[in-house]
Amino acid sequence: MSATATIGVINISDRASQGVYEDIPGKACVDLLNEWILTSFQVEYAVIPDEKDQIEAALIDFCDNRNCSLVVTTGGTGPALRDITPEATEAVCDKMLAGFGEEMRRASLQFVPTAILSRQTAGIRGHSLIVNLPGKPKAIRENLESVFPAIPYCIDLIGGSYLETNPSEMKVFRPKKT
Amino acid sequence: MSATATIGVINISDRASQGVYEDIPGKACVDLLNEWILTSFQVEYAVIPDEKDQIEAALIDFCDNRNCSLVVTTGGTGPALRDITPEATEAVCDKMLAGFGEEMRRASLQFVPTAILSRQTAGIRGHSLIVNLPGKPKAIRENLESVFPAIPYCIDLIGGSYLETNPSEMKVFRPKKT
Amino acid sequence: MSATATIGVINISDRASQGVYEDIPGKACVDLLNEWILTSFQVEYAVIPDEKDQIEAALIDFCDNRNCSLVVTTGGTGPALRDITPEATEAVCDKMLAGFGEEMRRASLQFVPTAILSRQTAGIRGHSLIVNLPGKPKAIRENLESVFPAIPYCIDLIGGSYLETNPSEMKVFRPKKT
Repeated sequence: MSATATIGVINISDRASQGVYEDIPGKACVDLLNEWILTSFQVEYAVIPDEKDQIEAALIDFCDNRNCSLVVTTGGTGPALRDITPEATEAVCDKMLAGFGEEMRRASLQFVPTAILSRQTAGIRGHSLIVNLPGKPKAIRENLESVFPAIPYCIDLIGGSYLETNPSEMKVFRPKKT
Repeated sequence: MSATATIGVINISDRASQGVYEDIPGKACVDLLNEWILTSFQVEYAVIPDEKDQIEAALIDFCDNRNCSLVVTTGGTGPALRDITPEATEAVCDKMLAGFGEEMRRASLQFVPTAILSRQTAGIRGHSLIVNLPGKPKAIRENLESVFPAIPYCIDLIGGSYLETNPSEMKVFRPKKT
Repeated sequence: MSATATIGVINISDRASQGVYEDIPGKACVDLLNEWILTSFQVEYAVIPDEKDQIEAALIDFCDNRNCSLVVTTGGTGPALRDITPEATEAVCDKMLAGFGEEMRRASLQFVPTAILSRQTAGIRGHSLIVNLPGKPKAIRENLESVFPAIPYCIDLIGGSYLETNPSEMKVFRPKKT
C-alpha cells in the first residue's frame, strides 16, 4: 500500500456532465476532505451523467484501477426516473452497508422531512468503500459528517489506506484491539 | 395530468376479504386522506386476501390503469407466514424507498417495541408511489402521519398529481428550487 | 409443540472454530438467555468458521432438524472480506426483518460511531427466528437487549415455542388481542 491514499469523487448529474450546471457538489466534497483529512491523499475526479452503465464503469475504474480507498458519489439518489446511483452502486459492490443510508437519512431528517426520499447507500468493492451522497452542497456536508467518523476504520478493515483526520475538525473512531 | 388526483387504498386481509372482519383499516386511510388533503381527489378502493399474485395484480392495476399517484396498502407486513405485502410491493416497484420503512418503524417504536417486527416499505412504480401501512387503525395514523410530510413532494418528483394539504392538519414540505 | 423450547447459539469465527480464541461470545449469549428467560429451554450450540456454506448448513440444521424457535449467531457481520454471516442468513430465510438491524445499529450508535459498519440482520425460516449479533460480548448484550422485547411475540407469530421472561431482568411485549 502506498503512503499516499487515493480518494475518488464522482459527481453524477446529467446537467453537470453537459456543462449546463457548474460542478459544485464534487468540489464541495473535495473541500470537506481537505478540511478533515491530515494524511496525504490525492483525488481522482469525474463528472458523469445519470446512466447506470457509465456510473458502474466509473466506480469499477476508481476502485480496481485507480486504487481508491474511498469513493464518494454525489447526486442521483432520489425517487425520480433518472436517479440510478444506488442501483449502480449495489451492482458493483461485494457487500452493502445499510447503516450508512440509515444514518445519513437520520441526519437529514433533523432538517427536512423529505430526507426519507433519499435512497443513499454504501458498500464495499474489494479494498474500496463507496458512499453515496446527495447532490446539494449543504446536504453533502450534513450527510458526510454524520458517517465520516466510521470511515477510516472501515477502510482499515477492508485493507485500504490509513487515514488520519484533524480531530478538531473531524473526530474519527477506531475501537481498541481486544 | 387531470386536475383531480386519484389515490388507491388496498386493504390486504384474508378475513376482511371474506367478510369475516369489517374493513376498518381501509376506511381509516380514507378518513385520514380526507382530513389532510385539500386538493380534489378520488379514491380507488379494494379489499383483497393475502395472496401475492392478487396483491401484485391490484397494485399494477391501480398504478398503470387507474393512474393512482399514491397507493396505500394496509396489513400483511408482519413476520407471519401469510404476511406477504412487502414482497408483492417490491415485485412490482421500479425502485424502493428504504427511508419510509425506517421512519414508520421509528414512529411506532415510541409506542411498542414490537414495531421492529414490521416489514413495511415503500416504492415507486412509474408515476405512482406505493406505501405499506400496518393493519391496525391506531397504528395506521401513527405511521402515515410520520411519512406524509414527504409524500406530495415525492409524487411531484415522479410526475404524479399535485397534492396540497390543510397545513393546520398536516404540514407537508417541498424544498425551494435551487 | 413441546413444553421445552429450543434456542440455538452459533458462534461464527474462524479463530474460535480453530481453538485459537476461547468461545466467549457464544457463552455470553447463553448467559443472557439464562438471565432473562423464565420458561424451560434447552440450548443447541455450535462454533463454526466464517464459511458461507457451513453457516447456511448450521442454520438450516438448527431451524429444521433441531426445532429452534430462536437462533442467535455471533460474529461475521462487519465489512471485512471474511464477514459473511448476513449473506448466509439471508440465503436461508423466507423473509427478512429489517427493523432488527436498524434497532441494533441505533442501540450501538449510542456507544460507538462505527456501529454503522455492522450489517447485522434478522429473518424467519419456517418456525424459527434467526438474529445476527456482533462478536464482542459487551456489544452482544447491548444489541440483544435492544431487540429482545419483541422476540417472544415474533416467535408466537411464526408458531414457535412460548417464551416468558423475568420482567425484572427483561420486559417483553405482547400486544393485546384486538
